[in-house]
Amino acid sequence: MNQEIQLVSRPEGMPTANNFKQVDTDIPSLKEQEILVKSIYISVDPYMRGRMVDRKSYIPPFALNEAITGGVVAQVIETKSDKFNKGDYILTSFGKWQQYQTVKEENAMKLPDLDVPKSYFLSALGMPGLTAYFGMLDIGEPKEGETVVVSGAAGAVGMVAGQLAKIKGAKVIGIAGSDEKTRFLEEELHFDKTINYKTTPNILNELKEACPNGVDVYYDNVGGEISDAVISLINHKARIPLCGAISSYNKLEDYGPRLQGMLITTSSLMKGFIVSDYADQFEEATKQLAMYMMTGKLKFKETVVEGFDKLPEAFIGLFKGENIGKMVVKVGEPE
Amino acid sequence: MNQEIQLVSRPEGMPTANNFKQVDTDIPSLKEQEILVKSIYISVDPYMRGRMVDRKSYIPPFALNEAITGGVVAQVIETKSDKFNKGDYILTSFGKWQQYQTVKEENAMKLPDLDVPKSYFLSALGMPGLTAYFGMLDIGEPKEGETVVVSGAAGAVGMVAGQLAKIKGAKVIGIAGSDEKTRFLEEELHFDKTINYKTTPNILNELKEACPNGVDVYYDNVGGEISDAVISLINHKARIPLCGAISSYNKLEDYGPRLQGMLITTSSLMKGFIVSDYADQFEEATKQLAMYMMTGKLKFKETVVEGFDKLPEAFIGLFKGENIGKMVVKVGEPE
Repeated sequence: MNQEIQLVSRPEGMPTANNFKQVDTDIPSLKEQEILVKSIYISVDPYMRGRMVDRKSYIPPFALNEAITGGVVAQVIETKSDKFNKGDYILTSFGKWQQYQTVKEENAMKLPDLDVPKSYFLSALGMPGLTAYFGMLDIGEPKEGETVVVSGAAGAVGMVAGQLAKIKGAKVIGIAGSDEKTRFLEEELHFDKTINYKTTPNILNELKEACPNGVDVYYDNVGGEISDAVISLINHKARIPLCGAISSYNKLEDYGPRLQGMLITTSSLMKGFIVSDYADQFEEATKQLAMYMMTGKLKFKETVVEGFDKLPEAFIGLFKGENIGKMVVKVGEPE
Repeated sequence: MNQEIQLVSRPEGMPTANNFKQVDTDIPSLKEQEILVKSIYISVDPYMRGRMVDRKSYIPPFALNEAITGGVVAQVIETKSDKFNKGDYILTSFGKWQQYQTVKEENAMKLPDLDVPKSYFLSALGMPGLTAYFGMLDIGEPKEGETVVVSGAAGAVGMVAGQLAKIKGAKVIGIAGSDEKTRFLEEELHFDKTINYKTTPNILNELKEACPNGVDVYYDNVGGEISDAVISLINHKARIPLCGAISSYNKLEDYGPRLQGMLITTSSLMKGFIVSDYADQFEEATKQLAMYMMTGKLKFKETVVEGFDKLPEAFIGLFKGENIGKMVVKVGEPE
């Protein structure tokens, strides 16, 4: 009576439907200090591509022929934990791509009662929002009047990162891959300027025009040629938080101009990070993000795909630029 | 009765003797608050290559048909300044490639009376030593037991950087370009391991063997393929101070594997800097370096070329790896 989606082969290049398999499985039996939950929203995120290959990284690779794991918002169906009641909504970062699953109480967080969609705890108020928060505010440190460029700006992380820079008084330029996305960024999120990298005849020229005073912070979600162009315009003491390199996740080799010379001549900093580097500050940051959201300073948008069986398709869609904002899959209805 | 060496054309690729011209010039007349000095040692440094091209950088390019400028140790011949006496030795960072020159008193520093060669104020106790100091200690921050790799390790900056990491208790691997250099690093400076990048059949394999626990700090003086190999071995939260990219200074384009993915998966930092970023801490750092030197913890080596007319040749030699330690030209005898 349960279903899960497994990784059955490791993608080379772009993932395909054949890398995944949907299989019947039992509903696991509940142990002490655990809860049995029904999955409502399951997150698909670009970083998962890295876990699909077998290499040394900050988290171990996904095992073959087991359910893929990630962020899940779920509802408690049955409980052997004092901390949760039947009907509670929880978030687990160690969830599985399963319709029903058991979760250890220490791996579940009860969702606070805020007037936002529950799926937002997988995005604006969850991992992507926190990724934007720490990368932009701790590494990027935008100041009043500075110029900030965000790539992947219409993605879950990018749209939060750009708005945080706006809140700090910076001029924000967003790079995205469709006119629908750039229009959204300008009209709904009030980015100062946007660039559609897919239709611009010359991204470097357009960046130069958009950033007449150079670039002070480049929040890099994509890597590749877009980043090469932005980095060629950085100012003295620029900061480049490296959040993702989606352009290279599906490539076996990725070559480009070496950046060391530019970083030296401008005394600039480039820093990779993952959100768990900041685990001790999650609670405070989540409160701050929720506060910005409740006061209207931070807006958000999701692309919600419906259907448990659509998980592989939604994941693959991330690399085709199909989503505005956070891509999330609604896999079940609350009871 | 005076001579100067001018830059007369901008090098494309490796500089050649034709880019320079030695010309007769007058001994300038002395104004108030100035000193007339005789040049004793003139510094040639890799960073000067960057000033020979006409592009935006942290310092303006050298002007054509004017004397090249840089660090000079000189002796006061005549003085219209209360702060200096005839016979004093001074250092100026704004010196010219001239045999005699006037220096404004605010641009001259009287050399302290230490038992070291006076040329050391152009190197171990001057700009290269300070570059090693701030890059290694402020950005690299090596800790007891960590693994530190230094490229260009037998150069003026590299040999000081490596020894500072040893002082902090790290295991230090030096990369240099001749057996004479690697022998010097191991036997005289007690580097834990060295690699001759010119003769190794496979630098990556040799690095893996030398760094079984990975690389925590990479002090990068060279850029290029050597750096690609080292950076492929960095640990979680590695630090990469970017001090120079000598391998690319003479290239019009420099391509290599993109590094963003590696920096993200390891949460590592790469930071360019120039020594003047730390100008407010020079005095304290120079004292610390002198203390290490006086107590035998910091050793140094120079390559001294004799003759004012040898300046261009010595400069070009920097890019052929001809020097162990600091390359300096002795251009005159004290009076």
